[in-house]
Amino acid sequence: MQNDLHIYNSLNRKKEEFKSITPNFVGMYVCGPTVYGDAHLGHARPAITFDIVYRYLMHLGYKVRYVRNITDVGHLENDADEGEDKITKKARLEELEPMEVAKYFTDRYHRNMDQLNVLHPSIEPTASGHILEQIEMVKVILEKGFAYEKDGSVYFDVEKYNNDFDYGKLSGRKIEDLLQFTRKLTGREDKKNSFDFALWKKADTNHIMRWASPWSDGFPGWHLECSVMGAKYLGERFDIHGGGMDLLFPHHECEIAQSNAVTGHDQVNYWMHNNMVTVNGQKMGKSLNNFITLDEFFSGDHETLDSAYNPMAIRFFMLQAHYRSTLDFSNDALNAAEKGMNKLFETFNMIDDLTPANESSVEVSKFEQLCTDAMNDDLNTPIVLAHLFDLSRILNQVNDGKEKLTKEDIEFSKSLLQKYLFDLLGLKDDKDKDDAQLINYLMDTILNIRKKAKENKDYQTSDQIRDELEKLNIQIKDTKDGAKWGFK
Amino acid sequence: MQNDLHIYNSLNRKKEEFKSITPNFVGMYVCGPTVYGDAHLGHARPAITFDIVYRYLMHLGYKVRYVRNITDVGHLENDADEGEDKITKKARLEELEPMEVAKYFTDRYHRNMDQLNVLHPSIEPTASGHILEQIEMVKVILEKGFAYEKDGSVYFDVEKYNNDFDYGKLSGRKIEDLLQFTRKLTGREDKKNSFDFALWKKADTNHIMRWASPWSDGFPGWHLECSVMGAKYLGERFDIHGGGMDLLFPHHECEIAQSNAVTGHDQVNYWMHNNMVTVNGQKMGKSLNNFITLDEFFSGDHETLDSAYNPMAIRFFMLQAHYRSTLDFSNDALNAAEKGMNKLFETFNMIDDLTPANESSVEVSKFEQLCTDAMNDDLNTPIVLAHLFDLSRILNQVNDGKEKLTKEDIEFSKSLLQKYLFDLLGLKDDKDKDDAQLINYLMDTILNIRKKAKENKDYQTSDQIRDELEKLNIQIKDTKDGAKWGFK
Repeated sequence: MQNDLHIYNSLNRKKEEFKSITPNFVGMYVCGPTVYGDAHLGHARPAITFDIVYRYLMHLGYKVRYVRNITDVGHLENDADEGEDKITKKARLEELEPMEVAKYFTDRYHRNMDQLNVLHPSIEPTASGHILEQIEMVKVILEKGFAYEKDGSVYFDVEKYNNDFDYGKLSGRKIEDLLQFTRKLTGREDKKNSFDFALWKKADTNHIMRWASPWSDGFPGWHLECSVMGAKYLGERFDIHGGGMDLLFPHHECEIAQSNAVTGHDQVNYWMHNNMVTVNGQKMGKSLNNFITLDEFFSGDHETLDSAYNPMAIRFFMLQAHYRSTLDFSNDALNAAEKGMNKLFETFNMIDDLTPANESSVEVSKFEQLCTDAMNDDLNTPIVLAHLFDLSRILNQVNDGKEKLTKEDIEFSKSLLQKYLFDLLGLKDDKDKDDAQLINYLMDTILNIRKKAKENKDYQTSDQIRDELEKLNIQIKDTKDGAKWGFK
Repeated sequence: MQNDLHIYNSLNRKKEEFKSITPNFVGMYVCGPTVYGDAHLGHARPAITFDIVYRYLMHLGYKVRYVRNITDVGHLENDADEGEDKITKKARLEELEPMEVAKYFTDRYHRNMDQLNVLHPSIEPTASGHILEQIEMVKVILEKGFAYEKDGSVYFDVEKYNNDFDYGKLSGRKIEDLLQFTRKLTGREDKKNSFDFALWKKADTNHIMRWASPWSDGFPGWHLECSVMGAKYLGERFDIHGGGMDLLFPHHECEIAQSNAVTGHDQVNYWMHNNMVTVNGQKMGKSLNNFITLDEFFSGDHETLDSAYNPMAIRFFMLQAHYRSTLDFSNDALNAAEKGMNKLFETFNMIDDLTPANESSVEVSKFEQLCTDAMNDDLNTPIVLAHLFDLSRILNQVNDGKEKLTKEDIEFSKSLLQKYLFDLLGLKDDKDKDDAQLINYLMDTILNIRKKAKENKDYQTSDQIRDELEKLNIQIKDTKDGAKWGFK
């Protein structure tokens, strides 16, 4: 496939030309949410980042298999205070069921993603749905000698692995440094080294989620699911693995180690990481009270927020920064994003009204290449948006009679905006909100007419308005701030 | 919990008082879709039937854990014509991936269920996500002596089971009859008897979905997943198992056998089965070209359909028949349902306009008990709807001045309609449609005022209206049929 797409590969720390392993096909794996809480900006960013990658690869003509997992193997425990006796006597239905919690938050996550207009991945496998495959991989890693069992748990032997392979190749951390700086193990731990990680953990008595395995009733280590599900659905080698930068170490480093231990070679050609979101300059955290969920953004129901925000404003806001830059949320920034987005939508909706000229006074065809170049340069969406704003400015000048465009150039501009705004950047002009807004505007119009009629002592008109609205169950109240309306 | 709910138990073939095993809790398992095709009326009916059960049990105060599974272990095969050699040489990404197909149809099923306003179940486990648990159950059934292995596959030994238990207790089929009437086994089969069923099947070379097991690389028999997931999430004994009547035999019969083989006792107290849907009197079938998907109903895009149907009309249509009756779809029946439903919605929307009287001329309080009785009588929704139509008729007579109701009776009527129409029967009055309608009404209002102003030669008002609408990009055209409006 001919294209000039370059993406920044975290593995080599530079932009590289993208070449897929299998011609015309791309396999992409992205770390999805842990479904034991509501999604926030930190979930929206990777979802939107890799939605752009997904859309652009398909636009380039690739058939993309996009796998995004659901981490539903949590660490919920029965209330230990109740004592084991009481727990075992509880009816099954009275117990907390982790999968009920997981289902609840998975549904909410899906709804949020739909609100953000994030395309569904091709496959969305769950960790709990691949225990058998994870056990199989642990067996192989044990056979290959890169893991050891201790008291029903199995740990990955990082030091041993590092003798044959390069542990730390993704994060740049050296095992010598890790040895020196990580905390000493206490006597209670089963691990040989503090940086060894669990492939299988024996479950405590209170641990609810547990499965039978050759080593114990227990559960898989967190890093394992991605190696396993990537291999199962995309193969021993695939093209792109994405996720948030916070997952680079240890999660992705451990994934690389696991896959190498099994197959002897790297599984992933391009590692892509989106940067983090801060709120008013601070890291998000529950203790800082700046941990705003997407639902709170959409409803405005959080003390940090000045108002409710349209999901598309959140999406636009994120696309205004390059995915590898940090992104700081503030009310001002989000309001500015919403305004900018609406300006582009207004321009798009106005294009059909432009009067074509015989000749164009300004060049618009260049924007095709400019936008393509920006996308090919590691998905540089802020540059794409800057070009779209430039094009929008020209179109508004045409509308004002200051510039001229031919019919062909007007149509080209419209299709370019259509392609980038809606197809590739995945924005949408919210119809429902429009309807509600239009209703507000129409009511303003009606109330203005009524006000003027009253001022002119034209009571026939003002009474007619009242009666007509009555039929629609709409009531007008005159307050000191002017007339208000509402449904009865 | 005090209630008079009686439900028809397929196990005993009579209506029985409902008593939950654990006070205040209900565990309910319903067979969900096989996600290798689009949902049709045959999927909508159990989903809506058990949505009503779910809503009503919660209304009675039960905490309900509702499990509805997804059957995603299909029997897709690689194209045998290509030969094994070619298949194994294919890149992983070029192969058909069953989970990609399953994800696609699961998402579409979920969207359809949302359109039908079916509440999400508490847990929605997948068959592929419980292979380990299924293998564990096969092991136990083998240990207990109710199954045998043959060439990598494991079969349930129905004859052996029938010596200790009663095979056929749900369907009323006797093993002697089955022995006599089922076809003779050909030499190629591994089963001892034709009515034995697979617990584990060894996968052919071309079979894509396969997992490692003690017996072979293979896949679980279809009946197993429900026994396993019911036990895992609801316990060894739970209250209600539902599904379509077509699943009663062999699927549910086999589930009972499996669970009894493992635990020595029945797993389910109440078996509930919804009846089938026919189309113009005929069974649905692809060959009859009457196999209409829900999407086709909602879009009207099928030659059998006169028009598109609102999902709520489908829901209402189904609720107009008792779930144990067959239901015949026709355009006439569906149009009548939509009309009836809209009539009830209109009445509901009109109630606030009724003028209260000092005394009521007609009794409405009786409808509470009448509706409760109907629901308690095996969820008799058609009777509930008949009562709501009666109440609606009275309310319209009040509106016409032919009957009188007090403020209390009006409010009672409104809350009763609210409770049944929206909360328990799960209907909804489509909001988007309402917005569009309201915009039309408001524009009518504005154009009426403009017309009157013009008649009165009040050009200041008519010009003001024109200017205000201009700002909203709304253009008015005066035609011989009056003023029309549209967006510029």
